[in-house]
Amino acid sequence: MTSSRGALSRFHAVIPAGGVGSRLWPLSRADAPKFLHDLSGSGHSLLRDTWDRLVPLAGEGRIMVVTGRAHRSAVEAQLPHLGDANIVLEAEPRDSTVAIALAAAILVRREPDVIIGSFAADHIIGRLPLFEHAVTEAIEVADAGYIATIGIKPTSPSTGFGYIRQGEPLGVANAPGGRSVQSFVEKPDLATARGYLHDGGYLWNASMFISRADVLLDQLGETKPELLAQLRELAAAWDDPVTRGPAVDRIWPHLEKVAIDYSVAEPAAAAGRMAVVPGLFDWDDVGDFASLAKVNSGGRKTDLAILGEHARVLADAASGIVVSQTSRVISLIGVKDIVVVDTPDALLVTTTENAQRVKSVVDALKLTGGGNVL
Amino acid sequence: MTSSRGALSRFHAVIPAGGVGSRLWPLSRADAPKFLHDLSGSGHSLLRDTWDRLVPLAGEGRIMVVTGRAHRSAVEAQLPHLGDANIVLEAEPRDSTVAIALAAAILVRREPDVIIGSFAADHIIGRLPLFEHAVTEAIEVADAGYIATIGIKPTSPSTGFGYIRQGEPLGVANAPGGRSVQSFVEKPDLATARGYLHDGGYLWNASMFISRADVLLDQLGETKPELLAQLRELAAAWDDPVTRGPAVDRIWPHLEKVAIDYSVAEPAAAAGRMAVVPGLFDWDDVGDFASLAKVNSGGRKTDLAILGEHARVLADAASGIVVSQTSRVISLIGVKDIVVVDTPDALLVTTTENAQRVKSVVDALKLTGGGNVL
Repeated sequence: MTSSRGALSRFHAVIPAGGVGSRLWPLSRADAPKFLHDLSGSGHSLLRDTWDRLVPLAGEGRIMVVTGRAHRSAVEAQLPHLGDANIVLEAEPRDSTVAIALAAAILVRREPDVIIGSFAADHIIGRLPLFEHAVTEAIEVADAGYIATIGIKPTSPSTGFGYIRQGEPLGVANAPGGRSVQSFVEKPDLATARGYLHDGGYLWNASMFISRADVLLDQLGETKPELLAQLRELAAAWDDPVTRGPAVDRIWPHLEKVAIDYSVAEPAAAAGRMAVVPGLFDWDDVGDFASLAKVNSGGRKTDLAILGEHARVLADAASGIVVSQTSRVISLIGVKDIVVVDTPDALLVTTTENAQRVKSVVDALKLTGGGNVL
Repeated sequence: MTSSRGALSRFHAVIPAGGVGSRLWPLSRADAPKFLHDLSGSGHSLLRDTWDRLVPLAGEGRIMVVTGRAHRSAVEAQLPHLGDANIVLEAEPRDSTVAIALAAAILVRREPDVIIGSFAADHIIGRLPLFEHAVTEAIEVADAGYIATIGIKPTSPSTGFGYIRQGEPLGVANAPGGRSVQSFVEKPDLATARGYLHDGGYLWNASMFISRADVLLDQLGETKPELLAQLRELAAAWDDPVTRGPAVDRIWPHLEKVAIDYSVAEPAAAAGRMAVVPGLFDWDDVGDFASLAKVNSGGRKTDLAILGEHARVLADAASGIVVSQTSRVISLIGVKDIVVVDTPDALLVTTTENAQRVKSVVDALKLTGGGNVL
């Protein structure tokens, strides 16, 4: 399909706002997931920050949020300009393919030549003009028929992110940065990550996908035809209040949980249909407290990052991060790279080095009946 | 003065229950000082444990408690058998000389040949038959005219305690362990402490003093005659409710603050009047959280000691100590020798190595207006 309208005017952003963020427990939890917290010190939730940076690209009427039913009121409170047509409530979490492809299927029925871009609700991005520049290029690449992603130029040999191996330049007009994706690479070990940094041809996978909705759905149909059929059926019923509920009740329980990386991105890369635009903006997925400490201490390892509107922290020879959700006095003495998360019903004490292990505590609490604090 | 009554029957115990225990903040604080906490897991406060181990030696009617006015009701709740005549309420804290010598001055007026023994309200003692044995010997030594202390046989090269250098055996009947005190030694460095342990002639100073009241007061008169005169004046007014109040109001503000170590023990040692009886019982002054961790983990450094009736702790690769005064879930991951003290209005996170520095936080809070949590 080609279109006579300019690519940017056909752009519709999608924000999948799901995922608890278990590695950020006890801050992040089922009823207060990561995207509802202010983790950047901006004064706004990550979700609101995501919305705010998409408005200049898409406009307030063209940003769709896909979230769980339980989060509806919190999301609407954060985003007062989010219209009813732009909120998709999930009956149950069904992973990223359902979230993004259902949005695509709904939007393509309303507007056949729509270009969608999906952006996680819980990442931190800095230097916004560079973000806007990269997304604008990606939209052009998408208009040329590719499924585009944005790859972040690495600033360190991170082992916490997946990588994208760049291929050849695509030569798309108005998108000089666009290249093919040679392959996606899982989180590497440190030596491999150092090699990637030195090589220069590897970018961090920021899980942003920009594509014509019809192209994305066609790609999904190649690997997951049944799932695509279910999503199209749901989408056909979506915009009529009489048909939506029964369709959700009938179809939702049977939707497959699969990450869009596996259902769409990797097969598209293998078929030569995946593109990447380099992003030079600051980006972090704030995946754990080590990441949160880094983001909030300006990268200085000797500093103690403090999050919390009413934090009362008294520190002596301490570094790492304190997250305070209470009004208690918190004293730290002689603790390096410490992580202290103080909430009304749960306290976490660990180190940045052990930050990835926080999820194991959450799992243990599930097993031992501590679920009331999850 | 000699007496025809047996020494043990003239024994009257004194428990100075003062001192906040700043190094145990935020557990120990002005309105909940160390001696009111259960730090040994006995199920009773340290004060009550102190009382219970003195009852077999002195009897319930012969144990006097010297404490601050603010603690009266808490002390009486802990010690229901403490009679009115045996509670001395301090108008303001005036250090150990006033606490002990005022008790001596009051008791000697009631019973001229009384032998007093003062025992801190906030130490932990184990193997009680050995404690009783040592105190009984010390009472005999006191009856012979010495000011006796009990020196604990060191089990490690501790740098946290003062030491007593033993002199020659005294040859007191029924007190074969009694020796003269050659000198008192301040807290040593580690090398010196190792030397003391190897030498065998040094004992830990457990701040226990057993003496005829008249002997103690005479000794005080040699170094602090004015203070002694004030205390005798107070004591003379004490047992009459009409005279006590005015005397306290008039005299108390002018009482000198001085530790009994300086006003009595060291001068008595220099004059050859100080004796020491070795104690083979387990003893700890629980001076900081490192000490509290050690006492509550059976000495195993790899263990995590947990204090708190309602503690809910989830630990993975953690050692040190957790003190919980809330019902919050506390998760520790990969933190070694950690100290976590969780109270409703204040949280402390440090390490056993930094335990002595806790007092500096308390001092900082005093200066910065955080006094409401002290």
